[in-house]
Amino acid sequence: MTVTDDYLDNNRAYAADFSGPLPLPPSKHVAVVACMDARLDVYGILGLNPGEAHVIRNAGGVITDDEIRSLAISQRLLGTTEIILIHHTDCGMLTFTDDDFKRAIQDEVGVKPAWAAEAFGDLDEDVRQSVARIEKSPFITKTTSLRGFVFDVATGKLNEVS
Amino acid sequence: MTVTDDYLDNNRAYAADFSGPLPLPPSKHVAVVACMDARLDVYGILGLNPGEAHVIRNAGGVITDDEIRSLAISQRLLGTTEIILIHHTDCGMLTFTDDDFKRAIQDEVGVKPAWAAEAFGDLDEDVRQSVARIEKSPFITKTTSLRGFVFDVATGKLNEVS
Repeated sequence: MTVTDDYLDNNRAYAADFSGPLPLPPSKHVAVVACMDARLDVYGILGLNPGEAHVIRNAGGVITDDEIRSLAISQRLLGTTEIILIHHTDCGMLTFTDDDFKRAIQDEVGVKPAWAAEAFGDLDEDVRQSVARIEKSPFITKTTSLRGFVFDVATGKLNEVS
Repeated sequence: MTVTDDYLDNNRAYAADFSGPLPLPPSKHVAVVACMDARLDVYGILGLNPGEAHVIRNAGGVITDDEIRSLAISQRLLGTTEIILIHHTDCGMLTFTDDDFKRAIQDEVGVKPAWAAEAFGDLDEDVRQSVARIEKSPFITKTTSLRGFVFDVATGKLNEVS
């Protein structure tokens, strides 16, 4: 019995009360990019209802080619225009360096990743870096609002990075 | 007044009832990779509680280098071992081709993305493709359970892809 099996049991209860389907395009025209951290229930934090916003997540909530891909699809094919970026306090990405992480992988499996791990040392600076990567991308052209926040895992509050 | 401002109002209510902080490592040792689709409230669908599982999301719920990066960090630094993949019915990724999408961008902005858009024509086949990319990656070495599902946006049910 795995945790996955437990979650599938939960899904049966969810489906029993489910009312759908909703339309495909996000009704609020919003895309969120947030860290994958287990404590960030993005629907709860922002009060999102199903159908309102795309939610893109990865280690750190950083912007790499894959987030540009997702945002380009979100804006060009599904009509989103606002972007919300969410990093958070006590982030795992603050606890290591790319060099050490990739060296440990190389030592264990013999292959060094060709990708960056995207570790960072300063939360606010990395939010600004994410903003800059989106602003400088030639593929993200429909943005009407782009704002970055740090979620405080102790208080539940979003604090805007200026 | 943007939608982002409305969501920040929601966050004030969320923080007022917030009890934290929880520990950084996911308590259930699970990582979920799901589509960014607005109708997939992953916490609801799986009955996740805050602190239990990493949630990684992008257009399609596909596996590219950035998901391998996130899963490698999840497993190696934060101790997850189970992986749950979630695609869904009525997915936007079924509605276009990489060639047409990238041509439209090139025609508009003069630059063709160097990345794949990762559109697909068959949901089950793409879930199996995601499983294969994880299984073949040299960097994802701690997996004890890896299962793929298609979420039905009409019924709320997860259907396993075999």
